Amino acid sequence: MSSSYGNNIRLTIFGQSHSKGIGMTLEGIPAGKKIDLEKLDRFMERRAPGRNAYSTSRKEADKPEFLSGVVGDITCGTPITAVIMNTNTRSQDYDILKDIPRPGHADYTGYVKYGENRDYTGGGHFSGRLTAPLCIAGGIVLQLLKEKGIYVFSRIASIGGVKDEGNLVDCCLKDVDEGRAAGRTIINNPGAEGDFPTISEEQGEKMKALIAEKKAEGDSVGGVVECAVFGVPAGVGDPMFDGIENRIAQIIFGIPAVKGLEFGNGFDAAGLTGSQNNDSFYIDDRTGTKEVKTKTNNCGGILGGITNGMPVTFRVAFKPTPSIAKEQDSVNLSTMEETKLIVPGRHDPCIVPRAVPCVEAAAALAIYDALNLGV
Amino acid sequence: MSSSYGNNIRLTIFGQSHSKGIGMTLEGIPAGKKIDLEKLDRFMERRAPGRNAYSTSRKEADKPEFLSGVVGDITCGTPITAVIMNTNTRSQDYDILKDIPRPGHADYTGYVKYGENRDYTGGGHFSGRLTAPLCIAGGIVLQLLKEKGIYVFSRIASIGGVKDEGNLVDCCLKDVDEGRAAGRTIINNPGAEGDFPTISEEQGEKMKALIAEKKAEGDSVGGVVECAVFGVPAGVGDPMFDGIENRIAQIIFGIPAVKGLEFGNGFDAAGLTGSQNNDSFYIDDRTGTKEVKTKTNNCGGILGGITNGMPVTFRVAFKPTPSIAKEQDSVNLSTMEETKLIVPGRHDPCIVPRAVPCVEAAAALAIYDALNLGV
Amino acid sequence: MSSSYGNNIRLTIFGQSHSKGIGMTLEGIPAGKKIDLEKLDRFMERRAPGRNAYSTSRKEADKPEFLSGVVGDITCGTPITAVIMNTNTRSQDYDILKDIPRPGHADYTGYVKYGENRDYTGGGHFSGRLTAPLCIAGGIVLQLLKEKGIYVFSRIASIGGVKDEGNLVDCCLKDVDEGRAAGRTIINNPGAEGDFPTISEEQGEKMKALIAEKKAEGDSVGGVVECAVFGVPAGVGDPMFDGIENRIAQIIFGIPAVKGLEFGNGFDAAGLTGSQNNDSFYIDDRTGTKEVKTKTNNCGGILGGITNGMPVTFRVAFKPTPSIAKEQDSVNLSTMEETKLIVPGRHDPCIVPRAVPCVEAAAALAIYDALNLGV
Amino acid sequence: MSSSYGNNIRLTIFGQSHSKGIGMTLEGIPAGKKIDLEKLDRFMERRAPGRNAYSTSRKEADKPEFLSGVVGDITCGTPITAVIMNTNTRSQDYDILKDIPRPGHADYTGYVKYGENRDYTGGGHFSGRLTAPLCIAGGIVLQLLKEKGIYVFSRIASIGGVKDEGNLVDCCLKDVDEGRAAGRTIINNPGAEGDFPTISEEQGEKMKALIAEKKAEGDSVGGVVECAVFGVPAGVGDPMFDGIENRIAQIIFGIPAVKGLEFGNGFDAAGLTGSQNNDSFYIDDRTGTKEVKTKTNNCGGILGGITNGMPVTFRVAFKPTPSIAKEQDSVNLSTMEETKLIVPGRHDPCIVPRAVPCVEAAAALAIYDALNLGV
Repeated sequence: MSSSYGNNIRLTIFGQSHSKGIGMTLEGIPAGKKIDLEKLDRFMERRAPGRNAYSTSRKEADKPEFLSGVVGDITCGTPITAVIMNTNTRSQDYDILKDIPRPGHADYTGYVKYGENRDYTGGGHFSGRLTAPLCIAGGIVLQLLKEKGIYVFSRIASIGGVKDEGNLVDCCLKDVDEGRAAGRTIINNPGAEGDFPTISEEQGEKMKALIAEKKAEGDSVGGVVECAVFGVPAGVGDPMFDGIENRIAQIIFGIPAVKGLEFGNGFDAAGLTGSQNNDSFYIDDRTGTKEVKTKTNNCGGILGGITNGMPVTFRVAFKPTPSIAKEQDSVNLSTMEETKLIVPGRHDPCIVPRAVPCVEAAAALAIYDALNLGV
Repeated sequence: MSSSYGNNIRLTIFGQSHSKGIGMTLEGIPAGKKIDLEKLDRFMERRAPGRNAYSTSRKEADKPEFLSGVVGDITCGTPITAVIMNTNTRSQDYDILKDIPRPGHADYTGYVKYGENRDYTGGGHFSGRLTAPLCIAGGIVLQLLKEKGIYVFSRIASIGGVKDEGNLVDCCLKDVDEGRAAGRTIINNPGAEGDFPTISEEQGEKMKALIAEKKAEGDSVGGVVECAVFGVPAGVGDPMFDGIENRIAQIIFGIPAVKGLEFGNGFDAAGLTGSQNNDSFYIDDRTGTKEVKTKTNNCGGILGGITNGMPVTFRVAFKPTPSIAKEQDSVNLSTMEETKLIVPGRHDPCIVPRAVPCVEAAAALAIYDALNLGV
Repeated sequence: MSSSYGNNIRLTIFGQSHSKGIGMTLEGIPAGKKIDLEKLDRFMERRAPGRNAYSTSRKEADKPEFLSGVVGDITCGTPITAVIMNTNTRSQDYDILKDIPRPGHADYTGYVKYGENRDYTGGGHFSGRLTAPLCIAGGIVLQLLKEKGIYVFSRIASIGGVKDEGNLVDCCLKDVDEGRAAGRTIINNPGAEGDFPTISEEQGEKMKALIAEKKAEGDSVGGVVECAVFGVPAGVGDPMFDGIENRIAQIIFGIPAVKGLEFGNGFDAAGLTGSQNNDSFYIDDRTGTKEVKTKTNNCGGILGGITNGMPVTFRVAFKPTPSIAKEQDSVNLSTMEETKLIVPGRHDPCIVPRAVPCVEAAAALAIYDALNLGV
Repeated sequence: MSSSYGNNIRLTIFGQSHSKGIGMTLEGIPAGKKIDLEKLDRFMERRAPGRNAYSTSRKEADKPEFLSGVVGDITCGTPITAVIMNTNTRSQDYDILKDIPRPGHADYTGYVKYGENRDYTGGGHFSGRLTAPLCIAGGIVLQLLKEKGIYVFSRIASIGGVKDEGNLVDCCLKDVDEGRAAGRTIINNPGAEGDFPTISEEQGEKMKALIAEKKAEGDSVGGVVECAVFGVPAGVGDPMFDGIENRIAQIIFGIPAVKGLEFGNGFDAAGLTGSQNNDSFYIDDRTGTKEVKTKTNNCGGILGGITNGMPVTFRVAFKPTPSIAKEQDSVNLSTMEETKLIVPGRHDPCIVPRAVPCVEAAAALAIYDALNLGV
């Protein structure tokens, strides 16, 4: 089913941007797990809008209310449902969109699929707002993974043409080794405090400047998020259609605005030779126990769909926010005439910083599902 | 399940490289469809090894034998199973691989997952050979799609650093408009005859030269396949986790050696602004009926997971064949000592030309599944 | 997933008896369908407790609140979520049950599966209360089926040893033919008003008397519900594991207390010969169009998992309510000693009358799913 | 998908009665399991036709040929496919059935669903012959369950009106306790040797006589199979739609001719009171370890969909074989006229004895799937 994900756990997401509420049901989580609700709120905040200059000024209290699946803050083994009631919605902003689809949004495709009765306000079920329930589920699962020594890190790899510097895995490994693993975005850049995670503070500032520039122009800009999952044991995942790549892909492309995904060397591998791209094996006996490792990690920790014990690494391409202040060419679906459109409402000039926790949530759910930990 | 794909149809692939047979079961195909077996054989041949200088010299008669689901060459509505019995296998080539995993292959991850009893010969279930059943299923579905005016085209976009020229969609649209749509790779390059499909014959020759060069060096090289699906009506696909992108991703990453996937502008979109990347709408009334179209197709024909009526376009990154003739560093899993390995057997210096029909097969299966045509 | 049902639609049920709320998400319902909320409330009332002498005195306002999937009372194509917030729960009634499982309930099995942290209050996720969300989903789908000329009828076939008289299908067919089809339980017994549907008023009174007698004894009694679905076209359902019988079975056994299910002649067929049990064909041309029909309907409208156009008929056995006022033998799971238990709380002396709409809801969902009507 | 079953394992069955071959793919079986092929053959023989007076005289060599998933007779972790090539088919027997559906068979419903191009010969995909692949999969899984101390026993509970005597569980428990558990039908009746398993040899002879009598009359007769699964640990199964009852039901109704299913007291429970039907708990410390048990097993070992550690018991109603030698009323689908039909071919006067291993296979697959043992 379209709004559900998972084989061993099952996540179902419901809601529209301006419906009474949005939320998620997560089946398959064992009983007896304490959910640190305060930590979950902090994770949700990383996705929340209205926190700074480069996101929308719309404020939302994205605080999940748990209807079931927990007794107090302890899971009881049956489906966990959490909802966020919608407030601060300005539906009238969207009246013009009933007939005039926004370029780059799902307004037109939703119209073709669901017809007159679709919920077009605020993007309906296609809204980026639906990543809030994704982050509830992902935030819970990130806590469970950490118990097992599995950490998900990510960074903004680029915004527009501005690229971050440094190597995500090396940077995070230091954290992991030093026991500072926060299970969240990298902390090499103290100023970022997680809401604009780059390795190079300088490049981060350039990215912010680019976003501000595009915002001033009434435009928007895209970017790339890089993610690394540490601590996944070797042997996780399945051949063919349920490999780790397939599983991550199925959920990552569920985040609005994602248009590309690559693992390890990804598209760069297409330009390499086998002798350059193959990861040579060696024996690591630093811990006294001989372990098979690879000298490089060009495969992103996955071969044949199955983890090899190295960090799982991937990059996700986000297109620029389609909602821009500039006038655009659209059509009136009622009169079938061409028309100009200025998209109403308040929007992020760059979705990427808020997308970072969504990528982490998606990665965590995919890995957790593949681990098949049972109820 | 790992070796199954689909919601409305279900493809199950079985077999190992050197098992008695390999094959597929395809459920959900309506009764009364004639399968053009001769055409299917020709499609299979495009994937078959041993046809030319840039593929392995191993010859296989990849002719599917239908056990069920057809009466003669007409489908009867119940599961279609076709098998290819394995011949010309030289398992002894692989004895050395029992203990020594090949870098870049799933030998080590398969060992961790399945242990001593995995089938390591020829890559087992992870072998590229398992794309033959994928092509049986895809070849059938390509025929059914063509009945509905849906055509899948593809080309080699690059090999190593050598890029093809021209625009795939423009090139194919001409074919479609002129009624020459063969439902296979583009035919602008007559010399290619489908087994090395590029738009620029010159660039194609350069690619072949690069492959030959790497082969001579005992090395291999990767590449990118670009694919376009024409004729998919608007409104196909579902929001969130069953969008067209998610569905294509889940099956494409099932093809061995795929490490990246992007739709429309893909990773390039991350470097653009909204005003550059949004696809403006216009009214197309050339046929007398007013239709909504977009001036550009930066979104690859998909918004919110749902098709907009424009061609569905995507690119797939293939890593270089991991089997190379050069000596590599590996380990002995039995003794846990480092060792050198020269991979035995005959292998493709570049998998990309043979991967083209696999990409088409995968795309066809994903689109057909999303159409939910019933039995 | 355990709390989800369906292939073409997907129902997910969440909540525990005493959690903050219970509810359901229903995916796969087309856009543009008006839900008659008043009619839905009336359907829910048939399941609600506290309405009469033979059900529990506990009162609940089982009014669904729609969070998503509708705009006003019109579906918009994306997941429909409705919740019922729990009120009037007396959790302290259940303190004794933390360590002492009630015979006949899932207290012990839930303890083994989920451990100390299960939600034992009121039966948790196993409670009959969870049939309320089932009825929300079923009530919606019953309305959609009626649009297509498909009606679900049912009756209490027996309570304890007291059997109803008459033939359900004949009785309902008259209603259908006379256009009085209410899409709900049969109305031959005017006094019953749907909340105690039997064909024979006299037998119905005997059943009620038996329930009252058992209640007075501090005991409970079981019964059988018979259901018939009219108007399902021939050709619905699939061979083997997704036949109409399989689909109905999978959802019917999700209703607590169900221990048996039979279609058409069911267990009686095991005592018959082929010549007695086979349904002979004939041509029905009363309407001017020749139609294939069967003289009898011993198969319950299903052959090979696929409907034949005759009414789909089945019977469901409900065990007696396990909560009784009598003292019972149990064990203390903490001390592992045997103990006596008097089950606290208020309970139905017979669950069957309230189970009737649940059976209809389940049947409707199974049939609707099999119809694969798309979004 | 219709011909697939399972969540944690996945069984896919393919083939038609008279297609080139029939078979099954079983995904999700761990690597390194030895399949005792000789034992599997003996299990298959119990289902095979032509062995005695009360089954069809048609002989088939139902010997599975393994194409994949094994190396020698050891599983390798990837999909196991086995096929049986069809021989000794007399398709011309069925020419008359192209237009004239057999009463009680799926001929007509298959015609409506699949149209002219269905495979009507021998019942096509609906044939009882398709239980051979079910038994391959079940036979494998029965061996794996036995390793874990889980045994499946069954008996013919009745044929026509003739009932067996004795209690299946008591009878089998003695076998289990005495270490004679053969993992197959009960052996209290030495004469039966597994192919006509009853507890009472005398009643068994009466049943055989009844079958012979009906055969002589050109008629057939139905019956009931009772099954008990020993050794399933408490806590297996899931609430609501994936309970053990739901899972067994979904696969059991996939066996042709099944029309009813009940667990524990089943339909009898509907006539009982709570104080009669509830299973009281006690502490069993015979082994030195205190265990929670129930004095009776009226619930059939399942409460809330989850096992309680007692034997899982259920009964399955089989209708009489619809193929009888007597003339029957049918219709000609081509001319839409009524006609008489004498069904050609050789058929079982009673399917029940051959259905016994099918029930065991189905039970084993359902339990194994619920155990979620991983790959």
